[in-house]
Amino acid sequence: MKKRVGQYLLDCIHALDIDKIFGVPGDFNLAFLDDVIDRQDMQWVGNTNELNASYAADGYARINGMAAMITTFGVGELSAVNGIAGSYAERIPVIQITGAPTRAVENAGKYVHHSLGEGNFDDYRKMYEPITTTQAYITPENAQTEIPRVLEAAYNERRPVHIHLPIDVAGEEIEVKESFQLSSTESNDIDRYIEMVHEKLQSASKPVIIAGHEINSFDLHDQLERFAREKQIPVAQLSLGKGAFNEESPYYIGIYDGVLAEDQVREYVDQSDAILNIGAKLTDSATAGFSYEFDLDDVVMLNHRNFKMNETTADHIALPELLEGLNNMDYKNDSDFPQYQRVENQDFELNNNALTQETYFKMMQTFIQPDDVILAEQGTSFFGAYDLTLSRSNTFIGQPLWGSIGYTLPSTLGSQIADTTRRNLLLIGDGSLQLTVQAISTMMREQIKPVIFVINNDGYTVERKIHGETARYNDIKMWNYQMLPAVFGEDEAVSVHDVNTSEQLQAAFDQIERETDKMHLVEVKMAVHDAPEKLNEMGKVFAKQNG
Amino acid sequence: MKKRVGQYLLDCIHALDIDKIFGVPGDFNLAFLDDVIDRQDMQWVGNTNELNASYAADGYARINGMAAMITTFGVGELSAVNGIAGSYAERIPVIQITGAPTRAVENAGKYVHHSLGEGNFDDYRKMYEPITTTQAYITPENAQTEIPRVLEAAYNERRPVHIHLPIDVAGEEIEVKESFQLSSTESNDIDRYIEMVHEKLQSASKPVIIAGHEINSFDLHDQLERFAREKQIPVAQLSLGKGAFNEESPYYIGIYDGVLAEDQVREYVDQSDAILNIGAKLTDSATAGFSYEFDLDDVVMLNHRNFKMNETTADHIALPELLEGLNNMDYKNDSDFPQYQRVENQDFELNNNALTQETYFKMMQTFIQPDDVILAEQGTSFFGAYDLTLSRSNTFIGQPLWGSIGYTLPSTLGSQIADTTRRNLLLIGDGSLQLTVQAISTMMREQIKPVIFVINNDGYTVERKIHGETARYNDIKMWNYQMLPAVFGEDEAVSVHDVNTSEQLQAAFDQIERETDKMHLVEVKMAVHDAPEKLNEMGKVFAKQNG
Repeated sequence: MKKRVGQYLLDCIHALDIDKIFGVPGDFNLAFLDDVIDRQDMQWVGNTNELNASYAADGYARINGMAAMITTFGVGELSAVNGIAGSYAERIPVIQITGAPTRAVENAGKYVHHSLGEGNFDDYRKMYEPITTTQAYITPENAQTEIPRVLEAAYNERRPVHIHLPIDVAGEEIEVKESFQLSSTESNDIDRYIEMVHEKLQSASKPVIIAGHEINSFDLHDQLERFAREKQIPVAQLSLGKGAFNEESPYYIGIYDGVLAEDQVREYVDQSDAILNIGAKLTDSATAGFSYEFDLDDVVMLNHRNFKMNETTADHIALPELLEGLNNMDYKNDSDFPQYQRVENQDFELNNNALTQETYFKMMQTFIQPDDVILAEQGTSFFGAYDLTLSRSNTFIGQPLWGSIGYTLPSTLGSQIADTTRRNLLLIGDGSLQLTVQAISTMMREQIKPVIFVINNDGYTVERKIHGETARYNDIKMWNYQMLPAVFGEDEAVSVHDVNTSEQLQAAFDQIERETDKMHLVEVKMAVHDAPEKLNEMGKVFAKQNG
Repeated sequence: MKKRVGQYLLDCIHALDIDKIFGVPGDFNLAFLDDVIDRQDMQWVGNTNELNASYAADGYARINGMAAMITTFGVGELSAVNGIAGSYAERIPVIQITGAPTRAVENAGKYVHHSLGEGNFDDYRKMYEPITTTQAYITPENAQTEIPRVLEAAYNERRPVHIHLPIDVAGEEIEVKESFQLSSTESNDIDRYIEMVHEKLQSASKPVIIAGHEINSFDLHDQLERFAREKQIPVAQLSLGKGAFNEESPYYIGIYDGVLAEDQVREYVDQSDAILNIGAKLTDSATAGFSYEFDLDDVVMLNHRNFKMNETTADHIALPELLEGLNNMDYKNDSDFPQYQRVENQDFELNNNALTQETYFKMMQTFIQPDDVILAEQGTSFFGAYDLTLSRSNTFIGQPLWGSIGYTLPSTLGSQIADTTRRNLLLIGDGSLQLTVQAISTMMREQIKPVIFVINNDGYTVERKIHGETARYNDIKMWNYQMLPAVFGEDEAVSVHDVNTSEQLQAAFDQIERETDKMHLVEVKMAVHDAPEKLNEMGKVFAKQNG
């Protein structure tokens, strides 16, 4: 069957259950965009800029599994690198397609716009190498091998890939031999490694699992829960990957964040003699500056392509394989472990006093519903939100490893448009919102209905807690956030809330629950130096790390 | 004298006459920012995001000569790469400083936030290699050799450099041996090349100079004008580098843009038998898709580090040296050449009809004053503005080689803050404004007073002219642009104008001239498919190039 290369690429992308494509038009991708908008099974979501497109694609992939975006050569693809790097770090598979000058222009080394003006056309592809798992330069001849190769790699590694698509190639017809489908999962001989874990567990008196973000990336929640349940091993989660483990499970013991963890969690984990680190990374922000007290010799690293136990390492085993091997193991733990105390309602008073961060998060706990998607920006919002008690079917999205401020606003565009039936709650601050504010305009155009809480506390509070508490570089311009829907047009589509007190926050909650057919923008004013306790502590830890 | 490395770096930057530093705070640069804000001779300009900071630095450098910006590791520096790449392509020297994790953290390969989580710390530096002229990793030991080396390179090449500054290094004290100053200009033996040019000119009957952007980058206006005047050679300019030659000079013949040029300019240049291409690049957008008809064998390329005449090439000669050599040459041209017709007033009618692009630019011609800085976004604005007749002391800023939409808004922040005594006029469209709109907030905070004309014509008209005239990927969300000052706070600092007709535009002009103490935001509504004639033509050329 004859198809244009661009059509074939879109067929392959659609075979990965991707039905929205993000990006920004530019003259080197326009003809390819014709093939996007001509499809009935796919929707083009035009973004206001490429950084926002990359964040939106990341958010979409966190709900949908995979995502794709299209930029133009140079100016477009380079504006997306921060977002793509974040997807690489946190293992989110985003297919980044660059519409590029024709092969004729490239072969002649012409000085075209969006090039560096020196006749080279591979500079940007090289810049993508450290932040993508693989890259491809598509031609009509290699399309049916290279496109499947890179899409498989994005899926298998749950990491971004970069596709360079000359615009003449996109339009050239090829005879398509077979439709693309993911090939079956790989299988290595891993018995030896599983046996090592088995021995470690059998010799342990207090085993524990630390679960992290790769469980979310590879969607291994059921497998992990089965492993914990059948082997009766307690599970702690990192903030990096909250949602990796069902917080309703009797095997859940709570968040482990080093010295900041609740006593019973911290003590159990720190005293454990077999720590199975499954899909988890012990980063500075996840462990309060590496403040774990367990013996690293007792840790088994069970990460994707990174098995490590004492001196034994292996970089070829996929995480799904590892978990399958673990589940096939014959073992049962009999140690006692602490029970996670679900905190579904906490004491707070509704009054007219200035709202505090503490009350804000206590109230937020009462507001979240079991199926909500909760996004928390890497600032006061994340450090307050990662201790929220969630239900099995909640999804939590943060970015604590990459930690790019501004990420969650476009990410909410992506996560909400990936599934419009779930309520998306975004918790963000003013400094972060200012970086990527245009995403609200795209949300309105796409008529999606997330609920956005913007903490207005006059600046970069997360930075103030680390250094420069009153320094003017941590100040920002005070905006009238409540006017944003009006400036972006059609303000009747958005309900705006002005919150200064707990009474007003409760009134906003009530209205949001009544008006489910609207987007909501809630400005929550809080004092400049007020912050969740965990951010106060983490700030000191980071300041020390930089000393 | 003992100084911290960060202080020494700032001393060196200040020695280059840089007195404003752009950027965004992040925990790996905060302690260094203390040293910035402590200085009396330097001002910190905090931006809303790093892309905007990089564009602002570029605009500042185009007025001030050089610029500097500070980001944090990873998330910050990667958001700036599009702007820095543009500065590289168009030869604007921007010093990009990344505040990075400590050497101790790096040496231990720790999994810290803003890293890719794999213990590597050199990925981003590598990504900067294609878009900076050199890079440096600063230590206390090498600070006094590496910092002078990279700053010299930025100056000598008029291109960006990348400085990786671990935050502990920034705070460490060193004994400063001598203060930094640029060393004297290099000098090569170039007689042989100048003699070749001399012979070419002597054998020519119709010589011409094509002047381009490197004249602006290296500030060689006086030297070029002297060369034209003393040798009596006519000069055409490219749109890429408008402002390279004094349009009031009797040797100026006009803009050369290939088939789009006015007949007398096109004919003279195309028939010339000695084309001295001085600091100019014959790019697709500057030449309407390489539509020059002169013989390439008659072209002498006199670019920075790129001398080329027939088979002779040299990549070691700096452009200032070349121009000095040309000026020392003994030669006088005696051919006749056309006179540039200055168009300072054109016929247009003030009425209540819908404003057209044609009338808009005719009226703009009457509005510009001799000392204005004019910035034109790469869309309808640039293609209308590059034919404006300028005075010797005007400055024109566009970005036609790199062509990143959204560039000029933050660039105006930079160019206006570089010299608050000159009036800055920005001509931009709605699609572009949406990419980087936050820059208006920073302009308001910095209390600068540019005049911003926003063409509201409902989408990406520059793309429509190339492909997809009515395709929905070229549509954008309609904003209420006039509300922007209110949303960014303090709307009394900005006068807002609503322009639909020539009468209203004239009224806006009059008010702007009366109210010089305010920023002005003029929304100019024009029909969606109306465009300057040159954009209509260029759109067809680009469409063909992509075919």
